[in-house]
Amino acid sequence: MRTVKAIGAVNATDPLVPLTIERREVGPHDVLIDIDYAGICHSDIHTIRGDWGPITYPQVVGHEIVGRVAQIGREVTKHQVGDVVGVGCQSNSCRTCAQCEQGHDQYCLNGNTQTYNGIDPADGTITQGGYSQAVVTNEDFVLAIPAGLDPDKTAPLLCAGITTYSPLKHWNAGPGTRVGVVGMGGLGHMGVKLAAALGADVTVLSRGTNKRDDALAFGATRYVDTTNAAAMGEIAGSLDLIINTVAAGLDITTYLGLLNVDGALVNVGAPAEPFSVPAFSLIPRRRTLAGSTTGGIAEIQEMLDFCAELGIHPETELVSAEEVNDAWERVLSADVRYRFVIDTHTL
Amino acid sequence: MRTVKAIGAVNATDPLVPLTIERREVGPHDVLIDIDYAGICHSDIHTIRGDWGPITYPQVVGHEIVGRVAQIGREVTKHQVGDVVGVGCQSNSCRTCAQCEQGHDQYCLNGNTQTYNGIDPADGTITQGGYSQAVVTNEDFVLAIPAGLDPDKTAPLLCAGITTYSPLKHWNAGPGTRVGVVGMGGLGHMGVKLAAALGADVTVLSRGTNKRDDALAFGATRYVDTTNAAAMGEIAGSLDLIINTVAAGLDITTYLGLLNVDGALVNVGAPAEPFSVPAFSLIPRRRTLAGSTTGGIAEIQEMLDFCAELGIHPETELVSAEEVNDAWERVLSADVRYRFVIDTHTL
Repeated sequence: MRTVKAIGAVNATDPLVPLTIERREVGPHDVLIDIDYAGICHSDIHTIRGDWGPITYPQVVGHEIVGRVAQIGREVTKHQVGDVVGVGCQSNSCRTCAQCEQGHDQYCLNGNTQTYNGIDPADGTITQGGYSQAVVTNEDFVLAIPAGLDPDKTAPLLCAGITTYSPLKHWNAGPGTRVGVVGMGGLGHMGVKLAAALGADVTVLSRGTNKRDDALAFGATRYVDTTNAAAMGEIAGSLDLIINTVAAGLDITTYLGLLNVDGALVNVGAPAEPFSVPAFSLIPRRRTLAGSTTGGIAEIQEMLDFCAELGIHPETELVSAEEVNDAWERVLSADVRYRFVIDTHTL
Repeated sequence: MRTVKAIGAVNATDPLVPLTIERREVGPHDVLIDIDYAGICHSDIHTIRGDWGPITYPQVVGHEIVGRVAQIGREVTKHQVGDVVGVGCQSNSCRTCAQCEQGHDQYCLNGNTQTYNGIDPADGTITQGGYSQAVVTNEDFVLAIPAGLDPDKTAPLLCAGITTYSPLKHWNAGPGTRVGVVGMGGLGHMGVKLAAALGADVTVLSRGTNKRDDALAFGATRYVDTTNAAAMGEIAGSLDLIINTVAAGLDITTYLGLLNVDGALVNVGAPAEPFSVPAFSLIPRRRTLAGSTTGGIAEIQEMLDFCAELGIHPETELVSAEEVNDAWERVLSADVRYRFVIDTHTL
């Protein structure tokens, strides 16, 4: 057992405070990672605020983790001391269900182990996340960060990157497909970059026009201000796939109306209110409304390698531990271009 | 121009009455069909009642038509006088859009021509359906009824059959897949027979227990009374595909909860009220909510040939013209096992 510095929540409402948390001993298949960078995801805030149900405090969040291997267990074969590595949303899974056997541990039928606010199968404790100096993780859930990626900008790939990459791949985004990305925040800006890199024709759908230039710079072919009904009407029926990254409620009928025959609208953001979906918004063009969550470990590695090969990085703003509470406020007011990353050396 | 006897509506509410309607001259690519049998579809009633928008009266409905070729146009190559043939929901389409070019005329981007209550491209008149003695249809939209099918029982395949066959095929129902069919009326009973014939493991989901024996006789492996919460709970997460044939509102969250990872709930029935769909009913297992409408001409022919080969027939109750109004009342009260067919010789 070792203690490490962290910044975390002692209740649902107060600012995060410096904490000291325990990390388990390095087991035979574990890797001790000295954390260098941790991304700030909107899910961190939802979890601490209790938006997704009550949690136990204190809780340290963070599931976009990049660091270096400091120690390995005696049976570890996948990583070596000094390797630059990452940890994403899940830190373990049952490994035996039909989904795990196919490498889809993000859909583990027995419930995978979330990197924070989960139950650690190693010792039964509540998992604590990446806003901290170090973490101990089973080697199978540690990603290799390729040399082509800048460690200080890479953390957001572990959640924002894979959460958009996985549905883009599953729904076959690529040359000849027309992909819409709704919302251009942390997830959305990665969705644009990744869809464009996969060869798709990308349309960004966002409120107002102040992100237009960024959208085109990230690889979008066109930008549509969703408050402009005429512009929305012009693209009706034109898209094969829409990735919705917005957690606020949407007039889902309007967005389904943008889909071509056999088009899919995939939600990776989760509004609190249910969507109101008329059957006739789906039937006449065989449209689908779907959802998708992160990606499996194998797919995360594939995405990291893809990003390294093509030089794709998230747009990040580095903050110190002292600035994390302000950063959360800025996330809540959508004042971030496009993802905060904590320099955990400042803890 | 020729006049033929029919039974149709003169307004939205009164019983159907005997009418005389006109059929256009047989053009070079047209087929004159002496109608023998016409199925009664719930859509017929919705259309006449104005449930899907105002229509022009008088209107003769019926889009499950079986008869014999009485005359062919001089350019017709696909059918011969005396052939047993059918006409389904669509009687023409643009033939030039991307969907028509792929043979998916049911999704014609320019709007195909419905067999009734459509605009006939040949003469601009409102199309009149199969509750009549004869119809003139473009040869490309006339189906060949294979010798293995009994003409008096085949009409419902042209709508109820293809509307369930098409999504079963599109979503890959077959050996190793677990298919749920919600509702066992006209569409649902064909969904059960076809899914079982395709090799899927079929679960029927219906209110009460009085259709249990029929469901098992039609090929279902199990029957679940949807009013039995414990029985519903037992199959949670177990289905790969659900075909929802029910036009009444459903607690869609419960039904989505029956799906396995990557499962799809496909609506072919259209409730008037929108579905209320929480994002979290889709995201954690990458589930999809979809819709599907009938099938293209090529797929209808494929289904007819498949049914002939396997000896699959709808369960029908033959009625005379005089009995049609009573039959409609029985459709509205779900008192039919499982599809009425009008013997149009009685007109």
